Amino acid sequence: MTIGIAGVYTTKFGELWSQGFASLMKEAIYGALEDANLEIKNLDAIYVGNMLSGNFGDQEQLGAAISGELGLNIPAIKVEAACASGGIAVHQACQAVKSGSYQTVLALGIEKMTDYAPEEVAAGLMQAASEDERIAGLTFPALYALMARAHMQKYGTTESQLALVAVKNHFHASLNCKAQYPFTLTKQDVLNSTCIADPLKLYDCSPITDGASAVILTAKNQQVKILASQVATDSTGLAGRESITEIKATKLASQKAFASANIDPQEINVAELHDCFTIAEILALEDIGFVKKGEAGPRLEKGQFKLGSKGLIVNTSGGLKAAGHPVGATGVKQVVEIVEQLRGSAGKRQVKGEAKLGLTHNIGGSGGTAVIHILTNKGKAFNKN
Amino acid sequence: MTIGIAGVYTTKFGELWSQGFASLMKEAIYGALEDANLEIKNLDAIYVGNMLSGNFGDQEQLGAAISGELGLNIPAIKVEAACASGGIAVHQACQAVKSGSYQTVLALGIEKMTDYAPEEVAAGLMQAASEDERIAGLTFPALYALMARAHMQKYGTTESQLALVAVKNHFHASLNCKAQYPFTLTKQDVLNSTCIADPLKLYDCSPITDGASAVILTAKNQQVKILASQVATDSTGLAGRESITEIKATKLASQKAFASANIDPQEINVAELHDCFTIAEILALEDIGFVKKGEAGPRLEKGQFKLGSKGLIVNTSGGLKAAGHPVGATGVKQVVEIVEQLRGSAGKRQVKGEAKLGLTHNIGGSGGTAVIHILTNKGKAFNKN
Repeated sequence: MTIGIAGVYTTKFGELWSQGFASLMKEAIYGALEDANLEIKNLDAIYVGNMLSGNFGDQEQLGAAISGELGLNIPAIKVEAACASGGIAVHQACQAVKSGSYQTVLALGIEKMTDYAPEEVAAGLMQAASEDERIAGLTFPALYALMARAHMQKYGTTESQLALVAVKNHFHASLNCKAQYPFTLTKQDVLNSTCIADPLKLYDCSPITDGASAVILTAKNQQVKILASQVATDSTGLAGRESITEIKATKLASQKAFASANIDPQEINVAELHDCFTIAEILALEDIGFVKKGEAGPRLEKGQFKLGSKGLIVNTSGGLKAAGHPVGATGVKQVVEIVEQLRGSAGKRQVKGEAKLGLTHNIGGSGGTAVIHILTNKGKAFNKN
Repeated sequence: MTIGIAGVYTTKFGELWSQGFASLMKEAIYGALEDANLEIKNLDAIYVGNMLSGNFGDQEQLGAAISGELGLNIPAIKVEAACASGGIAVHQACQAVKSGSYQTVLALGIEKMTDYAPEEVAAGLMQAASEDERIAGLTFPALYALMARAHMQKYGTTESQLALVAVKNHFHASLNCKAQYPFTLTKQDVLNSTCIADPLKLYDCSPITDGASAVILTAKNQQVKILASQVATDSTGLAGRESITEIKATKLASQKAFASANIDPQEINVAELHDCFTIAEILALEDIGFVKKGEAGPRLEKGQFKLGSKGLIVNTSGGLKAAGHPVGATGVKQVVEIVEQLRGSAGKRQVKGEAKLGLTHNIGGSGGTAVIHILTNKGKAFNKN
């Protein structure tokens, strides 16, 4: 059946101290409704991706809180999967439309992070890790630094190659007026920045961000459709994984997604990959099957994946790295960006040539959850799975 | 299509200081698998209903944490809707089966509450209320006391009638070895208990509880099937409601459920209603349409809804009131109880005569979310909605 994308919107990402939670929520929802040429009363259900609202001692029962604020009585349900909460909200919206119970379903991703002390935010985010890792005092930069170091030892990936992810994504963000850090960086800027968790430096890390994004899915045909929506999980802690030089959940979710969409990784024109740290984009490029293991670094050195290069273009929004990472919003924003690219409405960030297939990749924590969406502007419908 | 119930299980509810979160989770999941005669590898997806795990600073990304603990890589997703989290987990499991994406889906409800200081638990639970109510210093007993007082003024409901809900549900709990408080109470015991929020006394209130429950849904035909799964929302705060002598979300969700199942409230033989406070069962009896507004109290005085009486029997498990209320588990446990009744395997709590249709009613907060499930052991399948 068809899962059409009727409308999309994202707020600016950044330190949005002049906008509260309700303001961001309404901007995203009414923005997507306007884009879809729909009214609020046309919505049949809402899925909300959010991680930290409850942890910060504010609002739980977030679905009803949002529905009530909008004067609605429709099903409105919060889903939580750490930094993959947004991707899961889109996945649940797909399921809701596929089930036949609802015609028009909105997926909202939202997170308000910069109103809280950095220590509170760090402690909140660590709830996405395993209990062992929390007790050991590990942080997410440290966990990804372990993965980076292992990848460097096994495949010869270099700090300079990691830095090229940041350089590329900051260049893309410089073309995106919604990005938190719309400025360019040189490789030397990245390499010279403060060490956070060796080998990761400040500019290898994504920031703390406020923001909200919304996508409206419909059972009706639309210019852009979702071809596949797949989820996989794995141990939340690195110690429980088969390997730390790959993210198994990414491999499994993308294999299922390519199989159900009946396409090949090499057919994808544009992708938003979960680059919470520079090493994460390298892992994703390899684990999704865009390149072989160990080849992402050398490909980045050849200038690939950057606007203007040939083949797959990655993170035109600036990614989590430079557009910002409001955790619950990220997975929804990735879909918004791919829809803009497939509509040809991405402005200065528009990929060259005919983009027909796009992919989003959203991760929870250090890889406990992975969500893959494949989108198209061709005549295909949602496949059997 | 058919949504069959393949297996159910609930742990004991209570102050389970000898069991941690993982132990409760595994007992519930493996218990339901054994009941279904399935193995862990047969599960295609898991939905987890939980409210407070993140708020207590422990685990978020709970779906992956559970999936990883079980050695699985399947989609495993946490949903949160305050005290309706369990009902929403069952609803999402229904959607997942209806979507055709998954064959065998487990809904787990779990909450560990008694390891924390009562003030922490109370503060955590208040996140289900509106911001205004939290700032005003309201608590859930106070919010339900406001509803009780308004209902008494409008319909003449008495404190003695409220007490009869507790007397009935404690009698039922005395027959349930899984109940937190399996002892009987007299009406005088309830009326003489400490005042918590006038007119509600200690024995008008449900307790703080640990527990976990699991239900396995399948696209295959089973003895007990789900006929309808419906959700509605409303303002999380009382000030935003049209009336505080009814819960609109309950009315809307049950109207949709009866319509989609194509049955009438009077056809239901056995129901588990959300009696977080005694007044809540009275509101539910009326708002679902079992009796007219204002009639629930007089009916209770006639001895109705109690095991051994004629017509609808309510809260055979002991309800939240006496079986306990581990918030994320409650909505799943309600389904477990109705399945036992429809299978005829509820032992001493078995309703007399031929129970063919059962209903569960799960509420978030003071009525922001309502979830209704209708179950049957007849040949009917899941209806169009």
